Amino acid sequence: MTHDTLVPPLPEALVAALREHFGQRFSQGESKRLQHGRDESVHAPAPPQGVVFAESTEEVATTVRLCHAHKVPVIPYGAGSSVEGHLLAVRGGISLDLSGMNGVLAIHAEDLDATVQTGVTRKQLNDALKGSGLFFPIDPGADASLGGMAATRASGTNAVRYGTMRDNVMAMTVVLADGRIIRTGGRAKKSSAGYDLTRLFVGSEGTLGIVTELTVRLYPVPEAMSAAVCAFPSIDAAVNTVIQTIQMGIPVARIELLDALTLTAINRFSKTTLPERPTLFFEFHGSETSVAEQAEFVQQLAGELGGENFEWATRPEDRTRLWQARHDAYFACLQMKPGGRAFPTDVCVPISRLAECIHATNEDLAQVSIPIMLFGHVGDGNFHLVVLVDPDNAKDMQEAEWINERVVERALAMEGTCTGEHGIGLGKKKFMVREHGEGAVDVMRALKRALDPDDLLNPGKILP
Amino acid sequence: MTHDTLVPPLPEALVAALREHFGQRFSQGESKRLQHGRDESVHAPAPPQGVVFAESTEEVATTVRLCHAHKVPVIPYGAGSSVEGHLLAVRGGISLDLSGMNGVLAIHAEDLDATVQTGVTRKQLNDALKGSGLFFPIDPGADASLGGMAATRASGTNAVRYGTMRDNVMAMTVVLADGRIIRTGGRAKKSSAGYDLTRLFVGSEGTLGIVTELTVRLYPVPEAMSAAVCAFPSIDAAVNTVIQTIQMGIPVARIELLDALTLTAINRFSKTTLPERPTLFFEFHGSETSVAEQAEFVQQLAGELGGENFEWATRPEDRTRLWQARHDAYFACLQMKPGGRAFPTDVCVPISRLAECIHATNEDLAQVSIPIMLFGHVGDGNFHLVVLVDPDNAKDMQEAEWINERVVERALAMEGTCTGEHGIGLGKKKFMVREHGEGAVDVMRALKRALDPDDLLNPGKILP
Repeated sequence: MTHDTLVPPLPEALVAALREHFGQRFSQGESKRLQHGRDESVHAPAPPQGVVFAESTEEVATTVRLCHAHKVPVIPYGAGSSVEGHLLAVRGGISLDLSGMNGVLAIHAEDLDATVQTGVTRKQLNDALKGSGLFFPIDPGADASLGGMAATRASGTNAVRYGTMRDNVMAMTVVLADGRIIRTGGRAKKSSAGYDLTRLFVGSEGTLGIVTELTVRLYPVPEAMSAAVCAFPSIDAAVNTVIQTIQMGIPVARIELLDALTLTAINRFSKTTLPERPTLFFEFHGSETSVAEQAEFVQQLAGELGGENFEWATRPEDRTRLWQARHDAYFACLQMKPGGRAFPTDVCVPISRLAECIHATNEDLAQVSIPIMLFGHVGDGNFHLVVLVDPDNAKDMQEAEWINERVVERALAMEGTCTGEHGIGLGKKKFMVREHGEGAVDVMRALKRALDPDDLLNPGKILP
Repeated sequence: MTHDTLVPPLPEALVAALREHFGQRFSQGESKRLQHGRDESVHAPAPPQGVVFAESTEEVATTVRLCHAHKVPVIPYGAGSSVEGHLLAVRGGISLDLSGMNGVLAIHAEDLDATVQTGVTRKQLNDALKGSGLFFPIDPGADASLGGMAATRASGTNAVRYGTMRDNVMAMTVVLADGRIIRTGGRAKKSSAGYDLTRLFVGSEGTLGIVTELTVRLYPVPEAMSAAVCAFPSIDAAVNTVIQTIQMGIPVARIELLDALTLTAINRFSKTTLPERPTLFFEFHGSETSVAEQAEFVQQLAGELGGENFEWATRPEDRTRLWQARHDAYFACLQMKPGGRAFPTDVCVPISRLAECIHATNEDLAQVSIPIMLFGHVGDGNFHLVVLVDPDNAKDMQEAEWINERVVERALAMEGTCTGEHGIGLGKKKFMVREHGEGAVDVMRALKRALDPDDLLNPGKILP
């Protein structure tokens, strides 16, 4: 996947102004540019023409205002962990590195919320919460920045219980395309006061405004937690256990599926001897009795559907050990094709279609030669494929594109979505009209024109 | 509160076209116009120039297209239960009555969702769900239409557990200002595919598009429910019980406060003998053991804070009887000033400020002569004042405006919102800039211009 990179050089006046404002924190050096012009995926790198390391909302506004005056694109950059080409400078411009904006500004323990700068990562926030009895649940795997997670509407393993970034961002400070600074939302738990600007910016991937601060919801650390792992004779049996658990309204905190090949990858990577069969990982949160009740229910259900080797853990160190395999999954998978790159994709379908969707996907997987692992957040109907390719091998890329197209088309035919949590970026633009229809995409274009008429904020992303 | 009602007569060509398309279902009769030009509040009536009774999305689109061609406003009308002047035709135009669009289109029990036409009311949906083991929780009091509830981002008594319409609308069919029909969202439980159009239309009060169908989340009927009522020596003691319950993460389904005067109103209205003191109403949902656990915890907490006369109920008929007083509250309050009208207002603050906010509000209430009752969904930090006035009495209206201004200003100073669930309509436009700032309101104006450049959809609402 390559890009049209014929862009005019940065205007000298802009370069001079950025140097004046940012000194050493503005760089046009090749290594900095390369580092900010590639992501975790197979998308061909597209380096920006310069990088600004901003340290405050005012500095973000200054950068955006200068770029706006010179009609130069601005691409926000958080932890660099997105996977659909979100941060590539496909039309040149300035990468605005926000990782230095990493201050936890306020923890309102009594209101169960915290306000942070955009570059704070989820682990950093949880470190800051130690001892408060509270935690921030959203866990997309990578130690992403909260601003980036908001921008891609991230979710992950425990969204089944705690929701996604859509549900957990209460307020934001946003810099608009012309450099104006606005506040959206507020700290009240609910409001009917006008248009929901917070939800408009969540998931807009830096194309409508740049998030510089955000207030997120926190949750009391549960009184009790327990974890479990269970192998199944077939992926259908595992998925049916998930479906029945969700349909019964059991408030599981996490319910994750890994397919057999993912277990093989984990055993090789972590030197473990887990059964190389479809496996579910569970986590339960609540009071002592409610956790025990949930766990008993799920164990019985899994047993009826053929689940074996149920392993339980309640002590923190045992839970961590049990879940380690799940946490290692992505990196373990990457080792299954030495020198290869990941072509990650994800879809999400209504839970009633999940078994059928995964079953048919497995039939597709049998038809290709490249290694593909399936795992995901099945409690939400969301799963991933990690497709391993040599990006220079045309057949690999052809197979990967075919699988991606197949799984997305199937999800859309089942009233699902082309991406449950990765976002659109560059990689899934071609599916936008198929998912939403021309009319809804036209509305999105109208919103983009209204807020960024010169198409300077992360141009070339989301909208086909 | 009066309006500028100098509007040109409807174009004859439009009248002819509406007659042709809708026959008897287009009316310019005075009684129909009056009925569609007033709401439950003190706002002076502003009748539309005609009423169309639409029965399908296509008919809504036809009406909007015709009005668009003639630059005539369209005001959607559901159950008529809004309270901030949302449905008043302040610039004339056509009231689009959607109450006939009352078909439950699909119940996907296995996916915990249902798709309905916009005019279906919450009680109608719950009737349709009988026997399915599922229910739709959002309960704003009135038997509002689901389309109207989406338009005002409604919530109510059990939002503390199940969220608001923001959280519970998954997908919509929307007619745009020029008559185009789009679909937003989908039936996947989560998605990162582009801008969140569903959340943009939820809470937009018919000013950006007209919702004609919607898919909403359903929940399994809990295995066990219990209800409780408890009187407190002071409003502070009651509020502190609420705050500690929420901060401990107890998943109460409902936690409602009624002040002493509201209890007086209920006793008079319902011939009951409840203690005329600040009172909390609780409801707990879950498994048998979890409900018992929650209830014990809250009873102990309430006891420590002076709560007395704890009354419990688990059987459905006993729960209904216990909660009857709460359900009667609004109508009971209206009887406290015979011939008067309600000037309802609501605010929402972070839970840590709730006690202080209500305490200070009570001091304000002591300074006015009109009867004012305070009750609300305190688990979310949301409470109402029902201010009773004679709209023709200038002193009444002055006192009511003063109280409204005081309570809103206080909520905003406490990082809260000028309305937790009623919406902006006409009544709270003046607070929009104070709450959101000029910049954010400008963004809202830009969105309105982008989607409704001629300002034809429910004009004069939300935006100052």
